[in-house]
Amino acid sequence: MGNSSTRSIAWRDGTIEAVDQVALPHEYRLLRLTTVDQVIDAIQRLAIRGAPAIGVAGALAVALSARVHTHAGGCDEIAVRTEAQRIADARPTAVNLSWAVRRVVGKLGGGADAVLAEALEILAEDERQNRAAASHAADLVRRLCRQEPLRLLTHCNTGRLATVAWGTALGTIRELAAAGGVAEVLFGETRPLLQGARLTAWELAEAGIPHRMLVDSAGPAALAAGMVDCVLVGADRVCANGDVANKIGTYSLALAANRAGVPFVVVAPESTLDLSLAGGADIVIEERAAGEVVAFGGVDVAPAGTRVFNPAFDVTPAELITAVVTENGLFSPQAAVREDAS
Amino acid sequence: MGNSSTRSIAWRDGTIEAVDQVALPHEYRLLRLTTVDQVIDAIQRLAIRGAPAIGVAGALAVALSARVHTHAGGCDEIAVRTEAQRIADARPTAVNLSWAVRRVVGKLGGGADAVLAEALEILAEDERQNRAAASHAADLVRRLCRQEPLRLLTHCNTGRLATVAWGTALGTIRELAAAGGVAEVLFGETRPLLQGARLTAWELAEAGIPHRMLVDSAGPAALAAGMVDCVLVGADRVCANGDVANKIGTYSLALAANRAGVPFVVVAPESTLDLSLAGGADIVIEERAAGEVVAFGGVDVAPAGTRVFNPAFDVTPAELITAVVTENGLFSPQAAVREDAS
Repeated sequence: MGNSSTRSIAWRDGTIEAVDQVALPHEYRLLRLTTVDQVIDAIQRLAIRGAPAIGVAGALAVALSARVHTHAGGCDEIAVRTEAQRIADARPTAVNLSWAVRRVVGKLGGGADAVLAEALEILAEDERQNRAAASHAADLVRRLCRQEPLRLLTHCNTGRLATVAWGTALGTIRELAAAGGVAEVLFGETRPLLQGARLTAWELAEAGIPHRMLVDSAGPAALAAGMVDCVLVGADRVCANGDVANKIGTYSLALAANRAGVPFVVVAPESTLDLSLAGGADIVIEERAAGEVVAFGGVDVAPAGTRVFNPAFDVTPAELITAVVTENGLFSPQAAVREDAS
Repeated sequence: MGNSSTRSIAWRDGTIEAVDQVALPHEYRLLRLTTVDQVIDAIQRLAIRGAPAIGVAGALAVALSARVHTHAGGCDEIAVRTEAQRIADARPTAVNLSWAVRRVVGKLGGGADAVLAEALEILAEDERQNRAAASHAADLVRRLCRQEPLRLLTHCNTGRLATVAWGTALGTIRELAAAGGVAEVLFGETRPLLQGARLTAWELAEAGIPHRMLVDSAGPAALAAGMVDCVLVGADRVCANGDVANKIGTYSLALAANRAGVPFVVVAPESTLDLSLAGGADIVIEERAAGEVVAFGGVDVAPAGTRVFNPAFDVTPAELITAVVTENGLFSPQAAVREDAS
């Protein structure tokens, strides 16, 4: 077991050490990754997941690559850039991955050590940024809701597991709870891979924050029934107009929050912003394998051969979002300028 | 295997024979129920489920009770009424159950044979009503959508398994498909008990209708992405104002359909109407056990002790519903009068 400040991903003895998010909640164990292919595999099978976490893992994987391709004559930049592209392409929707890879590749001229130093800087920044974003978001939530203790609703996992430490939306919940301001956290189990059931339940129990789980489709009903004061979610990509891609199911919560007049707040680092995309229609939504849906724990739950549409993310339009909060405060879509949330 | 006109529930040799909906899709087998307690158990553990089906099962269970409590001196009405109340209380949300029980109890004065005859009449009516409602609804869908073949979205199971035969929303899909008007049916897996994955997939495969399954929270995303021409769902209770209780997840589909400008049509027999309730806030929503959510096929998916909010139904407000269609045509909420849908 760790705690909120234990890093879920680290560089240790020339390898990447990361919490195996597939093994939770049954087992808390660490992966030790020594090759680029191992990192790509861990990202693709969601052993490492969460937009900030896969960004850091991707950056460290480029550092691994730069070490391997450094010989007497120096670093083979072409070989590293080729592997870096494969790393950046491991998953398409969270922009943090390609952002982090691009940032460390920019240091290739300085050699493998410069690449590693930049990757470690990204890693170190993550917790600071999460804590800053969570602090801004907690201030905003207090202003929006006024009456504590709060009943919060979140989705998927945006905690210390999805990041290096602390968390974004779940970091905000940690901050509010630390001040005694949280009555209950509701969260969706997050089908198909149950990041809510497996990871968020585990983190909330670890943190001692009261919580109840729902099937994902019950979140809108809970909102309609007046059981929620504020919705807090993370993001995988935020467009210039403020549209947000996040785990499948986020959109339905935004629709229901909007109708119920409940604030809907997105918490994410600036590295999740993609100002090159005008709006959500431009975001590539990853579709994953049917097996994630038709089988459960190795047991088929649908007739053999049942076809599946399995998008891993959906897009929430900016007009349904009360605020996107980063480490720098509120993200203002249209003007793409920021104002302090506090 | 059966087909769309095979009855999923029947009276045979003094017993109730019903498809075991918990065994599907792995096994198609029949339950043979000989006591009231067996019927209540089958309804509560969802071996018999679907608002019309549990109505018929409840009526037949009263017939079983009337037979058992008929002696030389005649039928012990007090004993039967006591059991009838237990049957009506087996599940709270679908009004068809208490409606059917009340209807057959009204024949108690005629003795056990009169009760059985009324129960068999309810059973026989069900397929006729489904076919009539489906015909009206198919006409309406054609008028609303104009362009065939249609891409339809449904939820849970509203087919021959949820009724005596044919089905309501799925009966409508059968009718449209029989005329070559269906390109694809999308449907949610329907957490927590996976009636979509286990039952609707099986029925659509049996009927040879093209289909793809989604996690429930992907339905709203499919609607936003323009993948759906019409949503068709069933109902467990329809209030005087047109608010509809149906399987958890229905509300999120209605929100998304409304935003996307996609028609949202409810198909149900008149026995699902409850004009004694002014609106959805008056409907008792059944909450079921945490075990349905935290474990899967006997394997825990959340940390031990995780608490759960598990409502089996949600309420969709009338203003999000394009039409409620019964065997008599369109149900007009405010005036509670009907006009022919065709």
